[in-house]
Amino acid sequence: LDYQHVQVPFEITLWIMLASLAKIGFHLYNKLPSVVPESCLLIFVGLIMGGIIYGLNDKSPPVMDSDIFFLYLLPPIVLDAGYFMPSRPFFENIGTILLYAVVGTIWNVFGIGFSLYGICQVKAFRLQDVSLLHNLLFGSLIAAVDPVAVLAVFEEIHVNEKLHILVFGESLLNDAVTVVLYKLFRSFCEMPAIKSVDVFAGVGKFFVVGLGGVLVGLTFGMTAAFTTRFTKDIRVIEPLFVFLYSYLSYLTAEMFHLSGIVAIIACAMGMKRYVEANISLKSHTTVKYFMKMWSSVSDTLIFIFLGVSTIGENHEWNWPYICFTVIFCLIWRALGVLVLTFFVNRFHVNTITSKDQFIIAYGGLRGAICFSLVFLLPDFRRKKLFIAATTVVILFTVFVQGMTIRPLVDLLAVKRKRESAPTVGEQIHIRFLDHLLAGIEDISGHWGQYYWKDKLEYFNSKYLQKILLREYDQPKSSIVLLYEKLERKHAIELAEAGQLGHAPSHPSLLNNDRIVVTDKKLEDTLNPDILENIQEILARNLYRIRRTGPAYNRHTLPGETEPVEHAKEILILRRKSL
Amino acid sequence: LDYQHVQVPFEITLWIMLASLAKIGFHLYNKLPSVVPESCLLIFVGLIMGGIIYGLNDKSPPVMDSDIFFLYLLPPIVLDAGYFMPSRPFFENIGTILLYAVVGTIWNVFGIGFSLYGICQVKAFRLQDVSLLHNLLFGSLIAAVDPVAVLAVFEEIHVNEKLHILVFGESLLNDAVTVVLYKLFRSFCEMPAIKSVDVFAGVGKFFVVGLGGVLVGLTFGMTAAFTTRFTKDIRVIEPLFVFLYSYLSYLTAEMFHLSGIVAIIACAMGMKRYVEANISLKSHTTVKYFMKMWSSVSDTLIFIFLGVSTIGENHEWNWPYICFTVIFCLIWRALGVLVLTFFVNRFHVNTITSKDQFIIAYGGLRGAICFSLVFLLPDFRRKKLFIAATTVVILFTVFVQGMTIRPLVDLLAVKRKRESAPTVGEQIHIRFLDHLLAGIEDISGHWGQYYWKDKLEYFNSKYLQKILLREYDQPKSSIVLLYEKLERKHAIELAEAGQLGHAPSHPSLLNNDRIVVTDKKLEDTLNPDILENIQEILARNLYRIRRTGPAYNRHTLPGETEPVEHAKEILILRRKSL
Repeated sequence: LDYQHVQVPFEITLWIMLASLAKIGFHLYNKLPSVVPESCLLIFVGLIMGGIIYGLNDKSPPVMDSDIFFLYLLPPIVLDAGYFMPSRPFFENIGTILLYAVVGTIWNVFGIGFSLYGICQVKAFRLQDVSLLHNLLFGSLIAAVDPVAVLAVFEEIHVNEKLHILVFGESLLNDAVTVVLYKLFRSFCEMPAIKSVDVFAGVGKFFVVGLGGVLVGLTFGMTAAFTTRFTKDIRVIEPLFVFLYSYLSYLTAEMFHLSGIVAIIACAMGMKRYVEANISLKSHTTVKYFMKMWSSVSDTLIFIFLGVSTIGENHEWNWPYICFTVIFCLIWRALGVLVLTFFVNRFHVNTITSKDQFIIAYGGLRGAICFSLVFLLPDFRRKKLFIAATTVVILFTVFVQGMTIRPLVDLLAVKRKRESAPTVGEQIHIRFLDHLLAGIEDISGHWGQYYWKDKLEYFNSKYLQKILLREYDQPKSSIVLLYEKLERKHAIELAEAGQLGHAPSHPSLLNNDRIVVTDKKLEDTLNPDILENIQEILARNLYRIRRTGPAYNRHTLPGETEPVEHAKEILILRRKSL
Repeated sequence: LDYQHVQVPFEITLWIMLASLAKIGFHLYNKLPSVVPESCLLIFVGLIMGGIIYGLNDKSPPVMDSDIFFLYLLPPIVLDAGYFMPSRPFFENIGTILLYAVVGTIWNVFGIGFSLYGICQVKAFRLQDVSLLHNLLFGSLIAAVDPVAVLAVFEEIHVNEKLHILVFGESLLNDAVTVVLYKLFRSFCEMPAIKSVDVFAGVGKFFVVGLGGVLVGLTFGMTAAFTTRFTKDIRVIEPLFVFLYSYLSYLTAEMFHLSGIVAIIACAMGMKRYVEANISLKSHTTVKYFMKMWSSVSDTLIFIFLGVSTIGENHEWNWPYICFTVIFCLIWRALGVLVLTFFVNRFHVNTITSKDQFIIAYGGLRGAICFSLVFLLPDFRRKKLFIAATTVVILFTVFVQGMTIRPLVDLLAVKRKRESAPTVGEQIHIRFLDHLLAGIEDISGHWGQYYWKDKLEYFNSKYLQKILLREYDQPKSSIVLLYEKLERKHAIELAEAGQLGHAPSHPSLLNNDRIVVTDKKLEDTLNPDILENIQEILARNLYRIRRTGPAYNRHTLPGETEPVEHAKEILILRRKSL
């Protein structure tokens, strides 16, 4: 037996296997995941595993390595989030998101930091040795909402698109703020004296970190798109480039102390449309599938490790400090959301309702990022207290808030995500209004989002597409692309329905259409063959165009709902109409 | 700049990126890969890179780490080979393959070992200190044909299926022999005295290593199939299990000093049919695509690293020894093939022609496995000589034999792979004959391959399928499955042809068929709707069933050839027939 030799890959494979099997286990009992969020179940599995390891070895189980988390587990999740990010609502609300992410996070950091410092002054709690700087450092790591935890909970409760993108976008973009503040306070802790120059440098650094991340991401994204121009003869390695370039963008950003999360999101959002147009259909399925799979596994591993790392002797249980941390996290977030939303609502017609505000405040879950950051702290006397407080905050938010948010959403009757995707009619009108508004903005001299969007679209079709796309003939309207996609899907469905149900599939449908056609006078004026073609194409697609856009969900790929049933439904509809 | 932090993943990503870009580069100039095999080009790139590193650092570039090779680079290639292995020709020729792999390899090891020992006795060459045991050890690592090198060359020359499977199967299965002999001689080298018991133990070990590998592989394969029964609600992680279980089988086999290559092939071949039936279509596309992608990248990295590692000062250039190694490798392989084939041909009706024998002997390429094994040798005085000899043999076989084998195949007019896959008629007849032969064997009391195949099929449908398949209703004939697959593919093609060419697609085809139908008398006897359906389904599939089975190729997925052109071809054919 030579275990040493294969230990590293063997143990990694076993952990991934455990995570996957745990996932299967939950889904075997359909009722469980509908009551308890998967993240809670996974942490619970982790707690049990940690308990077993602790019981057997009689020493603390290994904690999740921060390097492993930031270098290997986090990127797939963020890539998935960025790649499947609905770009329209994101850019429509980018101002609000940035306000929450930047001002809101800074507000929380200082709010939590200063009020905890106040608590430390109470002599009865015996915390006088925790300095203001240490409290602010702790505030900077505990204030940030965690994208992994938010995704895990929000994808199950199906709130309306705007609410979802506000919480989710904030959790992603606050990374830049967290990185800057955390590193700033950590370096302040090690400095003998802090000059006001350092403070201003910190503010400047903030823009560098955020915008630098965007720049790095877009550079790699465009390079990725350009590379896929040349993969026509070697289709199998196409998916690789999507993963390689986005990972490189993350690593490069981290290397230069920029925000890796912002970089990978910019890379994914930037390259998506060009890569999709260049690579083959199968490559694209593989990219999407693998991204989902990878992020799903990473996410599972993170929650299991969170549970495992909780067990052990790394904690100092000073309950006053811990309880006040939880309370301050809740209060300052609620206050921040209230104040910021007040200003946001003054400048918007489509305001954020008070119900929505409550969910935004309540959905501020903390997760593995705080946990990894607290372990990265330099060693000092009270590190174990911070670890304990962070653990409790994470468990509180994930378990208490995560499990009660769904009933609360039901109770408050928060506006849900619309079930059906926009119809083609709606889509055409939205596009028309976009052009109209861009024109109005141009004439009135107000350079708003529509103006910039129009300019960007012009730049894209004039230069970018010519450089980055392989088959650049003429810019295909997205409606034509959608139509092509639907035709393909529909053809598959009909083929499958024909086999599986032995129902009269395609031919009989055609017959029915033909009967309708013969009733009309048009046949005399047009070439009957052409007419039949048009009629047929329209009839074939009338049903499908009602449901176009896929909903975001970590665990399923878009359009995975049973195609057979849809096809059957068409048949029933058609029967009735005759 | 914090390079230390991200160094490991960054460099790995960059190497993979380099490999992928090199691959794209070759395929941009279509003429290059048709003359020079890709493996040669990649080694060449590696040589240049090694030269640059050597020139810049003035020290030898890092050699390929044997652990990295065996743990991370080799498994994807073998998994791909096992998963896409054409099982029928493999099992039909299993006897011949095993004979070549076991007896042939042993023959080569001892042949090369003893004759090199003879060379060492010549005083002029100054090699008297190389003992017989060291020569045999060297023989054991240089004798084995390399699956990676064989695949890279043979997939481009398209020889007939039997010839391909003989060389390829041998290269895979000789791993068990190589492992045993290499470890045996290495332990002999460290022993003070060798007893005859040790020799017999070695022979016994050989069966343990081979059969143990098969057992480990099948166990993991069946577990994988069983696991995929329960993934219906969580489709995205299905592909993961295929990779996890096969990798675990490889690692477990390596851990117990069994043959990992044999294990992973048994695992892949065992699980394939059950996994395919359980997982969704998209998951399966992802599995196939990712397997191809991964093996393609691994293979590229291996050849580049081979090139890089060649440069440097690890070599002792004793030219007589090196030249005689190359000559003996050629001679003993040729002799071995001749003698073994003589015996094989006596027991077979379908004999191996002398042209085929020449290609089998000539196709015995050496590759990265030899290279990794020679670096794993314990340090002794002449290790650098062995490294030099191995490098030269690999470069000679890959460059000289690899580049000349295609012209030779053309010159000798070796029977090629049939272009078209078997028709449905042929497939039905093959199946019918299988049953017939199984019956004949049963009556005559001769327990041949058909008898065992029939028993295995019975066991499979009676027990295995019930345990391992999720939707086990009734065993679907593979022809029905094929038909379903074709219907689906054809539907997609028609949809795409209709959009892209704006040619009269589906509806007009139907019209034509209907004209044909009305001419016939059958219409009076049958319900015209049913008749139309049948006619339509048949007409739709008549073209496609001519080309069913996909050809094996590392770089493309089955059925990736332009579907649009096929659909257009249908239209043209149909026009002509009217």
